[in-house]
Amino acid sequence: MEEPAPRPLPSMLPWLVAASQVLGLASVVITGVWMGHYHGGFAWDGSAREFNLHPLCMVLGLVFLQGDAILVYRVFRREAKRNVKLLHGVIHLLALVVSVAGFVAVFDFHRSAKIPNMYSLHSWCGMLTLLLYCAQWVLGLLFFVAPGATTWLRSSYVPLHVFCGLVLLALSIGTSLLGITEKLLFNIMASYSLFAPEGVLANILGLLLVAFGLLLSFLVTRDQYRRPPNPEEESLSVHFKNLTDEGSPSSP
Amino acid sequence: MEEPAPRPLPSMLPWLVAASQVLGLASVVITGVWMGHYHGGFAWDGSAREFNLHPLCMVLGLVFLQGDAILVYRVFRREAKRNVKLLHGVIHLLALVVSVAGFVAVFDFHRSAKIPNMYSLHSWCGMLTLLLYCAQWVLGLLFFVAPGATTWLRSSYVPLHVFCGLVLLALSIGTSLLGITEKLLFNIMASYSLFAPEGVLANILGLLLVAFGLLLSFLVTRDQYRRPPNPEEESLSVHFKNLTDEGSPSSP
Repeated sequence: MEEPAPRPLPSMLPWLVAASQVLGLASVVITGVWMGHYHGGFAWDGSAREFNLHPLCMVLGLVFLQGDAILVYRVFRREAKRNVKLLHGVIHLLALVVSVAGFVAVFDFHRSAKIPNMYSLHSWCGMLTLLLYCAQWVLGLLFFVAPGATTWLRSSYVPLHVFCGLVLLALSIGTSLLGITEKLLFNIMASYSLFAPEGVLANILGLLLVAFGLLLSFLVTRDQYRRPPNPEEESLSVHFKNLTDEGSPSSP
Repeated sequence: MEEPAPRPLPSMLPWLVAASQVLGLASVVITGVWMGHYHGGFAWDGSAREFNLHPLCMVLGLVFLQGDAILVYRVFRREAKRNVKLLHGVIHLLALVVSVAGFVAVFDFHRSAKIPNMYSLHSWCGMLTLLLYCAQWVLGLLFFVAPGATTWLRSSYVPLHVFCGLVLLALSIGTSLLGITEKLLFNIMASYSLFAPEGVLANILGLLLVAFGLLLSFLVTRDQYRRPPNPEEESLSVHFKNLTDEGSPSSP
């Protein structure tokens, strides 16, 4: 079989990746400024300052780090796939740890302040997202790292893994926007409608999170930004394409 | 060129389409029950009953009808493409009209009740979604119906049109969830945390909307559910694949 010519780096890719990092980092910084400047900063003492860690951890873990874990396949285009896969799994694990810390912070604060748990749409969506995120991580480990899975099984699972990854990012961002709305209505309901600076800042944070999600989804779903397969991967891909006649990609 | 064998109907497709319709219709009905039973029904008189038309119109127009307009390419697999395209555009236009009515209802209510407009994240996301939805409809008309666009231009635009369509559906559903949270916190903040039936019903509505969006996105992005191209379309598709070497689909 003829070896494919190496695809050149798509000219827009570095700019779009840089823009995604600006959007993601700005979201984390604005969340920190919002909780720090308007709500007294952070602590781990059961007070409202412990609650403040919840939005920060969720935006950092379940949005920014999750997004960057997805993005490694577009950024490290020439690295050995094994290394990129390892980095992908490790960043997702880090995102999971930070997110669990964010969950513990809010449950701990609710316990201290005697506020009921799990009654709001935000909490339902958040719990669903975290559970599915754990499931996706474990399934990823079983399919792509554990020695038991056959190459056919891995190749068949990739499209579903990629779809669920983007769904989880969308759910995380949607849940963050619900959290922003809850926080504003609990704290500044009267002045929110008068365009209080805190409300405007939090609305901008919401739009930045949406923009981050859109850019990530665009980068991941465009054919021209896909990681160029190496000759062995190419050979496998064609093999499975012939077998299944569906053209499912064998790498994300 | 050899004519491709007609692809059989994927066995799960009718069940998944049926499930999407159950989810979408249940969402519309529950929104109607929520506004009818808990908030006094509907009227066009500037009162809170006019506001009640807002959630109903948005869930019917910008979620259910928009979703079904996207779905026609998966449902009418053997119809002439021209007819399916017409149906796609007409359902989207209907969705747009219903959505604009929903927007007028809330602005009219705000005017009567002297409530400021466009201060919340829900309103920012909603306005952004409606404006982008209008732009997507007009661009669709220019690229796919107006006589000026070349076949190459149409074929190049399809992947972006499909991506933006799914983004708009996600934005519509995310914005609906923000609206649900706003409505509950404005009206039943005290009893929401005590699992008041209205709160639970509205949370379930939120989850149904999410499930509708996930199922639609799954149906639209799976290769095996794509509309089988007719011989002329196949010929064009291969032609453009050779030209661009990117394998972009020439039909959604």
